[in-house]
Amino acid sequence: MLNFDLNTLRAVWMHEHKVSMYDQTKLPFSLEIFTSETRAETCLAIKTMIVRGAGSIGAAAAFAMAQGALESHSVSDLEIARKAIEATRPTARDLFAAVERVFSKALISTQSAINEAIIVAEETALAGKKIGEYGNTLIRNGDGILTHCNAGWLALQGYGSALSPIFEAHKQGKTVFVYADETRPRSQGARLTAWELQQAGIPHSVIADNAAAHFMQHGKIQMLITGADRIAANGDTANKIGTLEKAIAAKFFGIPFYVAAPRSTFDFDTPTGIEIPIENRSEDELLFVEGQDVNGKLHKVRIVSPNSHAENPAFDVTPHSLITAYITEKGIFKPNELSIIR
Amino acid sequence: MLNFDLNTLRAVWMHEHKVSMYDQTKLPFSLEIFTSETRAETCLAIKTMIVRGAGSIGAAAAFAMAQGALESHSVSDLEIARKAIEATRPTARDLFAAVERVFSKALISTQSAINEAIIVAEETALAGKKIGEYGNTLIRNGDGILTHCNAGWLALQGYGSALSPIFEAHKQGKTVFVYADETRPRSQGARLTAWELQQAGIPHSVIADNAAAHFMQHGKIQMLITGADRIAANGDTANKIGTLEKAIAAKFFGIPFYVAAPRSTFDFDTPTGIEIPIENRSEDELLFVEGQDVNGKLHKVRIVSPNSHAENPAFDVTPHSLITAYITEKGIFKPNELSIIR
Repeated sequence: MLNFDLNTLRAVWMHEHKVSMYDQTKLPFSLEIFTSETRAETCLAIKTMIVRGAGSIGAAAAFAMAQGALESHSVSDLEIARKAIEATRPTARDLFAAVERVFSKALISTQSAINEAIIVAEETALAGKKIGEYGNTLIRNGDGILTHCNAGWLALQGYGSALSPIFEAHKQGKTVFVYADETRPRSQGARLTAWELQQAGIPHSVIADNAAAHFMQHGKIQMLITGADRIAANGDTANKIGTLEKAIAAKFFGIPFYVAAPRSTFDFDTPTGIEIPIENRSEDELLFVEGQDVNGKLHKVRIVSPNSHAENPAFDVTPHSLITAYITEKGIFKPNELSIIR
Repeated sequence: MLNFDLNTLRAVWMHEHKVSMYDQTKLPFSLEIFTSETRAETCLAIKTMIVRGAGSIGAAAAFAMAQGALESHSVSDLEIARKAIEATRPTARDLFAAVERVFSKALISTQSAINEAIIVAEETALAGKKIGEYGNTLIRNGDGILTHCNAGWLALQGYGSALSPIFEAHKQGKTVFVYADETRPRSQGARLTAWELQQAGIPHSVIADNAAAHFMQHGKIQMLITGADRIAANGDTANKIGTLEKAIAAKFFGIPFYVAAPRSTFDFDTPTGIEIPIENRSEDELLFVEGQDVNGKLHKVRIVSPNSHAENPAFDVTPHSLITAYITEKGIFKPNELSIIR
């Protein structure tokens, strides 16, 4: 059990040359800290989703670049490290932004790189705090809120993106009820969002991804909030697979859809969603699932017919026309207002 | 391995006083036949989804009513049997229609009831054959087809509803590719549809329920076909949870949505979808999943954060405005043409 204090909880941190993180593949069944001693190990942790979520990937990538600086003897070494980090998760904008910042400092000195990585990570966390304060203004007492995937403190290094407004509303005494989409195939909603909400004492139900439109149709959901992995210049948003479907359903039922993300997730060099690369992950994520039996033992089991295969795009792109507004650390903006934070 | 001949495959059958069925809770990991010797046992098989799918539920319910007739000593006994069967699955229209038909014959004689049950079951199967022939006319060579849940021969006693046109198109030599939604929480798409398609040699991928809109957006899907559990007089359709969300996405992308169902699924006594009762099933269906480990051993494991709960509506209602047409054994009808088959 954690001491659930959002002011101190961080998903990833660096101490001396080591990068530590809550192992998100082990949650919610056990709370373990994974520690990486090298840039290569941190890259593997990003790739295998020991750390995940746009902001936390950014923080881990910043620290990985700092480790890369510690291990490098030349600019060429630094460039190799940078490329290896960038190859881990192609869709995540925060990763590229973070690596760029730390890389440019590493050209000055290793200590500058380490300092910059610490600043990147802490800025990300504090952006989540501001997102919570702005986003809270949109939440009315009694609201039912649908969220997809996990965009809490685990995902944004601290506080959260989509969950931060909910944490803030709860802190301010508002009654809210959260519908957490299971979020197949990796079940971040059922495993991580449910766990974070339970730790925070916020009433919630896990629902099948299939059930979101049904609850909208029955008036149970007043808003949809998700995080984002990359937002193009025109506001088109890449986020966890299924976000597009929820956004279309929300539009159909006249329910507002808010994308909560720090400025670092916006990629003004990418004009529209069409240009955002979408990561296809292993079919095994869909074919197999891990869970705990009645004795607390973990098993990985196949849940798809033995000779069939799966396709597994990890993200989808929601056109900006389906997005009501973006909740950022700089305020709340409509799609046609994004040039303000350019 | 089955001999995959749709002309002889039946999901449920009655021999002497016993009702047998392929155990759909054991597929695809083992092919077992469950046999029930009493009306009460057959009711339990319906309730626990050993048999599932609108038409197969109807056939099983017809046979259960015949067993009820065999066990009854009075009209009052028959009425008790009827109520017990009707209580198993409140949303399934075919169940009520089948029980009504067999009950009315049971008032004449037990043998009439048995004969009627056999007719109900076989008519359901043959309706699937006609649905396949009509539905095939809508499928073009090269089409990508999205289906949700399982509506093959297992679900409709024979041939299938949503899958029957696909089986027919394949038989006629058309190239088709099926995207089978996993269909959480009970994964009928991943377990049963994938298994049926694999047995039939039809190319397919299992996808996360979350991914359907993404594949529509990328031009991979030319039509959506599902079965139905109950269709109201105005065409509003109750079907497996998630159908509504797929229908909204199909409308958004301009993709036709066909509901394939026999006449027995239409309930002209229910004016609109609002009046269709929706079954809420145990949260355990979402909290736990069963699958097979590398040694072939089955495990039931918890996949949701330990202290969180779930809500689990089994069906949703799609408004007729989202439905292109209904494929029935009497032809293909638009929502405003349903009075033809009234």
